Amino acid sequence: MKSLVLERKGELSLRDFAIEPAEASLGARDVRIKLHTVGICGSDVHYYTHGRIGPFVVEEPMILGHEASGLVIEIGADVTSLAVGDRVCMEPGIPDPNSKATRLGMYNVDPAVRFWATPPVHGILRPSCVHPEAFTYKLPDNVSFAEAAMVEPLAVGVHAATKARIRPGDVAVVMGAGPIGLVTALSAIAGGCARVYVSDLAEKKLQIAESLSSAITGVDASKESIADRVKAETDGWGCDIVFEATGSPKAAARIFEPLAPGGCVVMIGGQPDPISYDAGAAMIREARVENIFRYAHVFPRCVKMLSSGTIDVKPLITRTFGFEDSVKAFEIAASAPPSDVKMQIELP
Amino acid sequence: MKSLVLERKGELSLRDFAIEPAEASLGARDVRIKLHTVGICGSDVHYYTHGRIGPFVVEEPMILGHEASGLVIEIGADVTSLAVGDRVCMEPGIPDPNSKATRLGMYNVDPAVRFWATPPVHGILRPSCVHPEAFTYKLPDNVSFAEAAMVEPLAVGVHAATKARIRPGDVAVVMGAGPIGLVTALSAIAGGCARVYVSDLAEKKLQIAESLSSAITGVDASKESIADRVKAETDGWGCDIVFEATGSPKAAARIFEPLAPGGCVVMIGGQPDPISYDAGAAMIREARVENIFRYAHVFPRCVKMLSSGTIDVKPLITRTFGFEDSVKAFEIAASAPPSDVKMQIELP
Amino acid sequence: MKSLVLERKGELSLRDFAIEPAEASLGARDVRIKLHTVGICGSDVHYYTHGRIGPFVVEEPMILGHEASGLVIEIGADVTSLAVGDRVCMEPGIPDPNSKATRLGMYNVDPAVRFWATPPVHGILRPSCVHPEAFTYKLPDNVSFAEAAMVEPLAVGVHAATKARIRPGDVAVVMGAGPIGLVTALSAIAGGCARVYVSDLAEKKLQIAESLSSAITGVDASKESIADRVKAETDGWGCDIVFEATGSPKAAARIFEPLAPGGCVVMIGGQPDPISYDAGAAMIREARVENIFRYAHVFPRCVKMLSSGTIDVKPLITRTFGFEDSVKAFEIAASAPPSDVKMQIELP
Amino acid sequence: MKSLVLERKGELSLRDFAIEPAEASLGARDVRIKLHTVGICGSDVHYYTHGRIGPFVVEEPMILGHEASGLVIEIGADVTSLAVGDRVCMEPGIPDPNSKATRLGMYNVDPAVRFWATPPVHGILRPSCVHPEAFTYKLPDNVSFAEAAMVEPLAVGVHAATKARIRPGDVAVVMGAGPIGLVTALSAIAGGCARVYVSDLAEKKLQIAESLSSAITGVDASKESIADRVKAETDGWGCDIVFEATGSPKAAARIFEPLAPGGCVVMIGGQPDPISYDAGAAMIREARVENIFRYAHVFPRCVKMLSSGTIDVKPLITRTFGFEDSVKAFEIAASAPPSDVKMQIELP
Repeated sequence: MKSLVLERKGELSLRDFAIEPAEASLGARDVRIKLHTVGICGSDVHYYTHGRIGPFVVEEPMILGHEASGLVIEIGADVTSLAVGDRVCMEPGIPDPNSKATRLGMYNVDPAVRFWATPPVHGILRPSCVHPEAFTYKLPDNVSFAEAAMVEPLAVGVHAATKARIRPGDVAVVMGAGPIGLVTALSAIAGGCARVYVSDLAEKKLQIAESLSSAITGVDASKESIADRVKAETDGWGCDIVFEATGSPKAAARIFEPLAPGGCVVMIGGQPDPISYDAGAAMIREARVENIFRYAHVFPRCVKMLSSGTIDVKPLITRTFGFEDSVKAFEIAASAPPSDVKMQIELP
Repeated sequence: MKSLVLERKGELSLRDFAIEPAEASLGARDVRIKLHTVGICGSDVHYYTHGRIGPFVVEEPMILGHEASGLVIEIGADVTSLAVGDRVCMEPGIPDPNSKATRLGMYNVDPAVRFWATPPVHGILRPSCVHPEAFTYKLPDNVSFAEAAMVEPLAVGVHAATKARIRPGDVAVVMGAGPIGLVTALSAIAGGCARVYVSDLAEKKLQIAESLSSAITGVDASKESIADRVKAETDGWGCDIVFEATGSPKAAARIFEPLAPGGCVVMIGGQPDPISYDAGAAMIREARVENIFRYAHVFPRCVKMLSSGTIDVKPLITRTFGFEDSVKAFEIAASAPPSDVKMQIELP
Repeated sequence: MKSLVLERKGELSLRDFAIEPAEASLGARDVRIKLHTVGICGSDVHYYTHGRIGPFVVEEPMILGHEASGLVIEIGADVTSLAVGDRVCMEPGIPDPNSKATRLGMYNVDPAVRFWATPPVHGILRPSCVHPEAFTYKLPDNVSFAEAAMVEPLAVGVHAATKARIRPGDVAVVMGAGPIGLVTALSAIAGGCARVYVSDLAEKKLQIAESLSSAITGVDASKESIADRVKAETDGWGCDIVFEATGSPKAAARIFEPLAPGGCVVMIGGQPDPISYDAGAAMIREARVENIFRYAHVFPRCVKMLSSGTIDVKPLITRTFGFEDSVKAFEIAASAPPSDVKMQIELP
Repeated sequence: MKSLVLERKGELSLRDFAIEPAEASLGARDVRIKLHTVGICGSDVHYYTHGRIGPFVVEEPMILGHEASGLVIEIGADVTSLAVGDRVCMEPGIPDPNSKATRLGMYNVDPAVRFWATPPVHGILRPSCVHPEAFTYKLPDNVSFAEAAMVEPLAVGVHAATKARIRPGDVAVVMGAGPIGLVTALSAIAGGCARVYVSDLAEKKLQIAESLSSAITGVDASKESIADRVKAETDGWGCDIVFEATGSPKAAARIFEPLAPGGCVVMIGGQPDPISYDAGAAMIREARVENIFRYAHVFPRCVKMLSSGTIDVKPLITRTFGFEDSVKAFEIAASAPPSDVKMQIELP
């Protein structure tokens, strides 16, 4: 029963790994899940290449992976909404149900959250896991395991679109055409935007973006000013929403430029250091800035949107590896091929 | 230069009609528009069949029609955003720019609004009209005159969807599958709903509804309880939003039944008399009820959504008449054929 | 160890009463509280006089009382925020921490809530009770037990004011000058209203209302139209918010009359039967209607507002009884003396 | 008929000054006002000492002053809400009534706003002015001219409190105890805050702050950490709202430190250059940041709050000068005496 273990920075192995008994024991409100498909996230790759993300440092061997779908193989005594044999996807962060943040409906900002593949919590590139019923979601027949393993990154985009409070017909800019930028663009359209400008420096990524929807316009930020382009196409008014999904300080310093009066900026991309904030530009627009952290309450919504066809993530899945090739998959992911959006690993 | 004139209740004629000079004079911020396509609205038909709507009584011959697109043929001295030859659609209500409601951004509830084909204001089933630049919207090349004449009813749906404050992935119920119910369903999906249940008593209308989107589920309210159906498909939780678009007191009395805790009801359909309101059902859900009146600020958004393909209204246009057949068109509309959604008239 | 027991409709006794062992056992996250002061609520009186409230029927002897303050006398093993000797007030409804409504931050609409003195759950007119730490709030030194026992009714007003989303300087109408009407008026002022019109039919109650704040204006609804009065004093515009706190169907039928365009109605008073709703009046104002059920997350806020002096509830406590006189207290409360607002009982 | 003229940077004179005829002519919807009291604002002083504020440069002699009250002495033909003899205060910025921003209800972000004492527009330290009825507000008898001239700075605080969407019982931090910080603290309390921590480096200013309300706690930022203090008094949770009113880049860099999860920061103080923004701190709290620019729609609300006693600005008026001493008044203001909050000038 092998797992994909990050032994230390730069060293991955596919090997037997014994999870602590406490983590493997099934509580009354838990389910046991056989993993089926796991997506590779930029944060998994970053732990592999850097051994840390901000304050989270890999100090002992840790199993990677947190974008997952699977099959319920055992249920706890008090589980009512799931049954053995159910196809499911799982939310990787488990908050303290008794914390103040959780009671207020903001479990994602509960400091006590335990999140898969964030040290010292193991991820799920392993045969099976135990997870709370409350954070495990049944899949409709028409949502595949591969799509279901996309729910986790999609959730970031849908949460961002929710916080933006899109009004139908809004015009948005998404800065960054990586996986998170693209799910954000799709979420923005599904959430009501009539037009989404996606900006990036990589032409190939912009082509992928434009192929996703006729409502997406790619803008090559190396060749033209996104602000100029948006203003030219909105009678000088600007866009209603800017989603910052690059995590680049340079891009983040210019978030207000394309924004219309009364508009909203959603900060998605993580920034290790303080960034430059043009308070004057924010002020004359009376901009609202929403800073988001992961997501809350959106997994079931994402599943519904995949099922109804409101959002289609299939074009984002550009490569699939067998579990036995997972070390190689991470090596490829670490090289950041320009034509790839999301790579996934299928467990045996 | 003929116009379609409602002489009095039940009597229409296509005849020469002299608009008062004041209405035909072009102000500095006005444009003159040659009408191209005009949709027939239920309110036009109601004036024809009943001679009144609530306090608005047809006391003198009045030109009908308020869902319109056309061509700019002359512009006032201070007009900057439009030019002769522009294809446009027009917002039929003109508020007092200096009223308190307008200054607060709610021009639709300004009591001084002058609205086409609402006595004593004439409609636009006539060769040309003068309209303020501020309420005239240029069409992109890929939006036809026929689609543009659908912007007015669509605006009701988009305004309703805006007021609902849809979060991506919401589940909605639209009560009523008439033209307003259908544009509301399309707006709800475009605005983020993952699933919309449309209920009606007419099977044919439900078939049309379901043909519009895979995210729409028709529910025959004569055969099953909409609340039961929704709860069965949402683990007993209910829907996030109910749009009341029937205008029927009987339907309106049951708006809270399918609604989830914390959900929202949007009252769209007009009600001549007070309705029955189940305050207890509203209370235990902490329902929010939004009552809407026409629309504000949504015309340009609707045009953008038609242009980007976010919303497609073409399937709703089920018949088109020449202007010379417009009396006949109203007679047919008054008979309410079950297979028709929107009938339009093309001017010469 | 006596308790105040409602034996059946109309029959109260102060007698020994054995709580079931399960209710008296202290969980790890619970505290045991010696009751100090308990307010008499209209619902307590209603159970006494009618034996039921809607679907909740007193079928077995039940201890009354749910507005309470007391002293912590024992704490569970995992309790961290409270200590023996702490003076506290308690939230009377305990939701299921694992329900969907609770996780969404709306624990008050969780159908599984267990609420003191709501059959079959006992109230707290008894020597001591066991309560979850999470719903027990420590009192600052400058908040008395009597004020603390007012937090429960005050919470209704503060929750209503929260849902109204008051903007500073708003004008409000509170329909009804009973205890809930008065705490709502105080909450509305504390929450930003510049002027609150309180309407009632009882002159004495209006005098009490006006004595509470210079921002309150009493309106005798038997002598003048509240809508006329408000419009006369707002240049014809109307008020921003109407709080319906009478529970009277007659009053509720007229909630929109004083309301300004874009205004909000908050339905507080319970209504056993459907009421008449003037959908046309709601529509032309684009009214928002918030229906509230008890409260959520406001107890600590109420305690802070009492402590900082933002709200003063002391003038509302018009009579205090010893526990040995509690049957008499209920008899007096049932007679609804016009000069009384809130009566309280002090436990020995 | 003398005016207070800023001839150029550093040079003020009280002299005859001819306003252009166009500005002095009374339109149909205008009123002519004899000025009574004018407050000295930091921006007036800044033009005096620096000759510019950001892009606004004093290139020709300009009359100063924009915080004003006065008496209506003439009305235009279409004026209906004001009469000769009315005591009034005036909003100093006049937007284009036909701009998109104005129609959307955000006239303060209309780029075409003409604002008193912002080059090239003259201020009102002069005998009389012409102003639109729509931005002139009648005073109740119990609001003095001096209080009325405080409405302009108060409007900034009330607008900030409105944008914060305070919930009753919130805890706020106001960074900065200057005039704007103090009106913001008062507005925050009036708008629902139970406790407001005001931080500053000047002990005298903190004493003034604490003297205004028992709900204000002064924090000397030179002696203790505001974040530590707030967390210590909120069980480690933090405050719900931070109002940044210093305009200091150093203070602005730390706005998120005292903030609770889900909290809001309101940026009030102007910043000439980009500031440092701790995106990581904002993210883990999911902070909302509102950037405000002046105010919109709040003058009548401020007048009501002064009249009802909800806000008392009288303690903020620390010195009053005769018009003949206005140059001296500006010299004193430029020296920023620590015990002064607002200085005013009374016109003859």
